[in-house]
Amino acid sequence: MKNYVNISDLNNLQNTVQDAIDLKKNELQSKTLGEGKTICLLFFNNSLRTRLSTQKAAQNLGMHTIVMNFGNEGWQLEFEDGVVMNENKSEHIKEAAKVIAQYCDIVAIRAFASLTDKEKDNAEMVINSFIKYAGIPVVNMESATKHPLQALADAITMEEFKTTKKPKVVLSWAPHPKALPHAVANSFVEMMQLQEADFVITHPEGYELNSEITKNSRVEYNQEKAFENADFVYVKNWSSYKDYGQVIKKDADWMITEAKMKLTNNGKFMHCLPVRRNVVVTDEVIDSENSLVIEQANNRTYAAQIVLKKILEKIGC
Amino acid sequence: MKNYVNISDLNNLQNTVQDAIDLKKNELQSKTLGEGKTICLLFFNNSLRTRLSTQKAAQNLGMHTIVMNFGNEGWQLEFEDGVVMNENKSEHIKEAAKVIAQYCDIVAIRAFASLTDKEKDNAEMVINSFIKYAGIPVVNMESATKHPLQALADAITMEEFKTTKKPKVVLSWAPHPKALPHAVANSFVEMMQLQEADFVITHPEGYELNSEITKNSRVEYNQEKAFENADFVYVKNWSSYKDYGQVIKKDADWMITEAKMKLTNNGKFMHCLPVRRNVVVTDEVIDSENSLVIEQANNRTYAAQIVLKKILEKIGC
Amino acid sequence: MKNYVNISDLNNLQNTVQDAIDLKKNELQSKTLGEGKTICLLFFNNSLRTRLSTQKAAQNLGMHTIVMNFGNEGWQLEFEDGVVMNENKSEHIKEAAKVIAQYCDIVAIRAFASLTDKEKDNAEMVINSFIKYAGIPVVNMESATKHPLQALADAITMEEFKTTKKPKVVLSWAPHPKALPHAVANSFVEMMQLQEADFVITHPEGYELNSEITKNSRVEYNQEKAFENADFVYVKNWSSYKDYGQVIKKDADWMITEAKMKLTNNGKFMHCLPVRRNVVVTDEVIDSENSLVIEQANNRTYAAQIVLKKILEKIGC
Repeated sequence: MKNYVNISDLNNLQNTVQDAIDLKKNELQSKTLGEGKTICLLFFNNSLRTRLSTQKAAQNLGMHTIVMNFGNEGWQLEFEDGVVMNENKSEHIKEAAKVIAQYCDIVAIRAFASLTDKEKDNAEMVINSFIKYAGIPVVNMESATKHPLQALADAITMEEFKTTKKPKVVLSWAPHPKALPHAVANSFVEMMQLQEADFVITHPEGYELNSEITKNSRVEYNQEKAFENADFVYVKNWSSYKDYGQVIKKDADWMITEAKMKLTNNGKFMHCLPVRRNVVVTDEVIDSENSLVIEQANNRTYAAQIVLKKILEKIGC
Repeated sequence: MKNYVNISDLNNLQNTVQDAIDLKKNELQSKTLGEGKTICLLFFNNSLRTRLSTQKAAQNLGMHTIVMNFGNEGWQLEFEDGVVMNENKSEHIKEAAKVIAQYCDIVAIRAFASLTDKEKDNAEMVINSFIKYAGIPVVNMESATKHPLQALADAITMEEFKTTKKPKVVLSWAPHPKALPHAVANSFVEMMQLQEADFVITHPEGYELNSEITKNSRVEYNQEKAFENADFVYVKNWSSYKDYGQVIKKDADWMITEAKMKLTNNGKFMHCLPVRRNVVVTDEVIDSENSLVIEQANNRTYAAQIVLKKILEKIGC
Repeated sequence: MKNYVNISDLNNLQNTVQDAIDLKKNELQSKTLGEGKTICLLFFNNSLRTRLSTQKAAQNLGMHTIVMNFGNEGWQLEFEDGVVMNENKSEHIKEAAKVIAQYCDIVAIRAFASLTDKEKDNAEMVINSFIKYAGIPVVNMESATKHPLQALADAITMEEFKTTKKPKVVLSWAPHPKALPHAVANSFVEMMQLQEADFVITHPEGYELNSEITKNSRVEYNQEKAFENADFVYVKNWSSYKDYGQVIKKDADWMITEAKMKLTNNGKFMHCLPVRRNVVVTDEVIDSENSLVIEQANNRTYAAQIVLKKILEKIGC
């Protein structure tokens, strides 16, 4: 694995999940693998879980970590080619990416969707520019359209908690006051497409995800019907993809409640966090024994660590 | 010691002070104790001494340090139970604290008083929520009402500079242009109540500290009288507690001057810093040989280090 | 070497350049030299290259690094003596510098020119105050008038790429939409004055640098004439020094183009970055094989590392 930008960059999802579970048993088992190696974590957007878990993962491997918040600590970058840079952008990505690559062995990047320019978001300009110019391994800490570290952590969590070989897994949209990106949902869908499962996506009409990602995955517009007999309910808000970045529905009838969870097969509740309580999900559900949200967050460390481990092994430590 | 939130969390102040002085002689004596362990320093407010000294202390013990500025790098947290989170708070402390605890072995928190809501400040919502939900040791890097790392550093400094078994120690209010919290004064009072000393608090009327903290500690409203024969003069501004968070007096007659220091027994001047020169204290006094402010700052490292050492020993490194 | 504030703080530039080139061959050759030592990087201004390369350099030497953004994470400092500090400055440099020195072995500082107060900028108040009060080695990460880590990296790069014993080196002004400091140009001039080279400075009239720095260095107001037969063209914008901090010319006729580079002796293009493409230099030139900008950035690590190594050797690790 050179870069980790999509869940499909893993050679084999199932093996990687098993490797991560193995590594979790003794997280310091490769504590000298990254000695003398440096990872730069570049944040173009805020972060809690990703910020802490990726640092933890790198440190577990003996790497040096350098964290930079591009907005506060650096300056605006230009991504377009051939521009006369006489406005507010101080440096071109061509230089920035090549320069950063001089100081580290791996670069990890968080750069959210604009939700205003669908074409640019789909082009993944920021992360793809780093791949194009940096020349060193690039790790996606949530890009405009993908969040593969989250999806890998979710796969690990489901592997740990599944009680049947082919569980029923529901990805359910839920309401939220703000317009949110599609990255988590997209990567979850792509991850599920690599799993043996009965997978169904449920959301209100108008909230269809990018069909190039959902492909043949089943969509069920009736949330309650979708929940029937589910083993895992993975919940996430996203804004409209068709009416790009718009919030077309906010009312509480799609909130995850105890009544809905009762339709499942004693189903586990999952969410990537942060979550708005009593908007996305009721206190009862997220505080229940079937809630896996903290386990998911914990597995972010091992998802990052197995990815960094595989990259380090590839670049030859 | 599980958490260090109040000076009273120390089993024995005098022994801890001696342990810190011992550790200061060779600050790398336990440099492998924290190997493979991580501390997260979470700042909800700005910091200089605490930020640097706590990192230094953790690194002296071989720990990994992860620093996060919650305001700039994260988002607003909800602390109330049962709220419909459809406003500007993106994550509940229940999740945030539990999640952070997945990535570190100790969490240290700075969260100042609001100075607008006395009841909430006294409830210490932020740090108590972390204790309640994180489940890992919590260290107070200045909370709404307490600053026990400062108080411990002050105890170390007084132990190093006292010339008599039972010194006279004065805590004196001094003027300041802005409304400041009570945390430093409160923890200093609590620390002094554990010491063998002739302790007196002096401040203008209306600036009484929380009587549940000052208890039987003597208050003298005449600053000059209080200074008579003092061995240590510990200076700090705070806003009114009664008229909560208000600045009811700004004039310079309570400023610490050479003339006032001459009333003391060649007394040492102490302040936790940052200090406003020629507002709180004149240049002459803070620049004099009797000023201990830099020694106090230096002892912040050893205060933090002895606390972290005791916590690490407890959690079993 | 106690401090590294000016290029002249190096005992011998040529030897230092050779030492850096030697160190670059095996950057971990002194990886335990800084063990148990801490460097604080204090940023009063934003940074990319300096932030990352100086951390990398320190980590290559086994040092702990603590990074602090003074503006966001701390508060405003007072630098004037005798002031009644009742305005917006919370701490005096006297305390801040002495306190920081308690927590680290070396302090590195970035504090740009104001470009509004020529006298203060020339007085280098921030970095000189740290030298005066901190008492520990101070490293300049770009001060009001100097950027000696950049100049050293440039000297390393020229040594690596020169094809003749005494190359012709041109420092050329180029246009920029914003008013920029003189620090990079000043330190480059001072570095060149220590080199065997045919050195010429070219800029529009009115953009003369401080004559106390340029001394006898040749100035040629005709840019094309200056470029004739040049081996290296070092490009940088700066604002007017005479009409302090003003932008008196923005038009593109001083931009670095392929046509101008053709006047050189197959000359190398150099710039410290960040650079505005198609304002300072055309895409063709910066993307050409003769562009050394990424090599310069890479050498920032080794410039910082050789400086830190010499300081560590002096303070006795």
